[in-house]
Amino acid sequence: MATVLDNIRESISKSNSILILTHENPDGDAIGSSLGFMHALKKIGKEVTVLIPTANPMYSFLPGFNEIKKEIEDYKNYDLCIALDSSDLERLHVCKPYFELIENTIVIDHHITNQNYADVNYVNAVASSTCQNLIIVLAAMDISIDKDIAECIYTGILTDTGGFRYNTQPETFEFAGMLAETGIDISKIYRLVFDMTTERRTRLLSRALNRLELLEDGKIAYTYITADDVEELQNEDGDQEGIVNYGRNIEGVEVSIFVREKGDKYKVSLRANEYVDVSQISAKFAGGGHLRAAGFEMAMSLEQTKQAVVEEIKKQLK
Amino acid sequence: MATVLDNIRESISKSNSILILTHENPDGDAIGSSLGFMHALKKIGKEVTVLIPTANPMYSFLPGFNEIKKEIEDYKNYDLCIALDSSDLERLHVCKPYFELIENTIVIDHHITNQNYADVNYVNAVASSTCQNLIIVLAAMDISIDKDIAECIYTGILTDTGGFRYNTQPETFEFAGMLAETGIDISKIYRLVFDMTTERRTRLLSRALNRLELLEDGKIAYTYITADDVEELQNEDGDQEGIVNYGRNIEGVEVSIFVREKGDKYKVSLRANEYVDVSQISAKFAGGGHLRAAGFEMAMSLEQTKQAVVEEIKKQLK
Repeated sequence: MATVLDNIRESISKSNSILILTHENPDGDAIGSSLGFMHALKKIGKEVTVLIPTANPMYSFLPGFNEIKKEIEDYKNYDLCIALDSSDLERLHVCKPYFELIENTIVIDHHITNQNYADVNYVNAVASSTCQNLIIVLAAMDISIDKDIAECIYTGILTDTGGFRYNTQPETFEFAGMLAETGIDISKIYRLVFDMTTERRTRLLSRALNRLELLEDGKIAYTYITADDVEELQNEDGDQEGIVNYGRNIEGVEVSIFVREKGDKYKVSLRANEYVDVSQISAKFAGGGHLRAAGFEMAMSLEQTKQAVVEEIKKQLK
Repeated sequence: MATVLDNIRESISKSNSILILTHENPDGDAIGSSLGFMHALKKIGKEVTVLIPTANPMYSFLPGFNEIKKEIEDYKNYDLCIALDSSDLERLHVCKPYFELIENTIVIDHHITNQNYADVNYVNAVASSTCQNLIIVLAAMDISIDKDIAECIYTGILTDTGGFRYNTQPETFEFAGMLAETGIDISKIYRLVFDMTTERRTRLLSRALNRLELLEDGKIAYTYITADDVEELQNEDGDQEGIVNYGRNIEGVEVSIFVREKGDKYKVSLRANEYVDVSQISAKFAGGGHLRAAGFEMAMSLEQTKQAVVEEIKKQLK
């Protein structure tokens, strides 16, 4: 019986012109896997288009980034559509119609929630990243990984594991070693992906750290940023990312609260370290999330928001 | 002819009681390799003492940390002394006499400056860490790496590569994969080694970020902390580590200057990104360092120090 990998190989071998799509707000794994697969498919003589309407310029160092199309003329130019790192059709967002209209489709992904919405679906949810699964696909297709492909795939593995911090399997390291053998610049990629920041972002962090309070014997860390901060510093959405971790990383802190004024609401992010179930707290305020990372919105004042959230956390503190 | 690894195997096989030493101010690689080797040698029936007078408690999560001795009674109790991660005798500091007095000695290290000061010296300067070299030694000795050994060795590799950020070879990843196979908790180790911080340290960072200035069209970042800060916040030496990187990581910055008042002097740290040779600037002020990371002391006022350093950097700015 033909395996999924056999079917992928066959589907690609009978196609000439291939369209690659990924999810909206694409991260390093989405962009890395798309460009990595593009380079690989070009090596075996395919015409390949990568369509990503909003590709974050922080990944512009990746080889092939300039070839990414923001739009395409006609879906009829393609006989195969490949969706990468996208767990369902909706996540393809404005690109969804192309996937529905093109005759043959493949999905490669690592999300356990994947809907298997293509003709051929390669979904291995044990893998750290779609890029890690792409390595298996390329091996099955006998395409050797050159430096360009490696740089793209390594970036996806790096971002989806937080720099080998979580979601990392023994194979993840083994594959990383194989990619490093091609001579890619490990340090450069790390710096561009994780270290680079902006003045605006650093100034916003500085304000939040200034306001950092430790409550309940140092078990709760609390800070906030206002709409005025964001306006004065000309911050972009996303500039607040990671601030919540500064509180969480302090010795003795169990829960870190980060509040951000947005429009007429306050967006609350919670991070726990060891035992507090913040998804439960989030659910009380009609939000969502995971056991140790959750978020929700509040329509009270900043001070009321703080008090209400602290009261809920206190119920679980040891 | 017997290889170095043969000689290590023989030296250990004829010894019963072994003393392990490492360098002063021991880092993760020093403590990880010492404890990792201790576990391994105990597995083959040796009596092993790890002597580290000042072991940073941040590594207390490592198995065997509680067995570390701060002092020993008599060197005569040992027939073999092994120095790990220490490039010369002086770096053994107060433990140096033991190394000199014990009859048989081994050095395992990865510093290119190693003085080969033992009877048997295994120094591979290509490796990321002494822990990485220890894997080779254990393989030569046919000692299989269990979970305790793996946790110690992984920690050393992680700290000496800054979390696979620099100084990372393809083999580093391959070894990390092998260690991960033992079932060690990759995420926990990462968090304990890199993420955990203290309130004092976060407050010091906050003050430094408040004072952050961008000079020369944003090509120079400058900030400082005073002796008063350190006194008020009750900071320990080391709490300032990493602050200089906040300036360096800002887009457009070529050189980051971090000044710290200490006693009647100012300690200056410089970090460059792409082209400024800060070792040259450091040399002008009688300091030392590398191409992109250097430091020195100044006996002028804070403002004079800032001006003098900025003037030197300006000469190299593009």
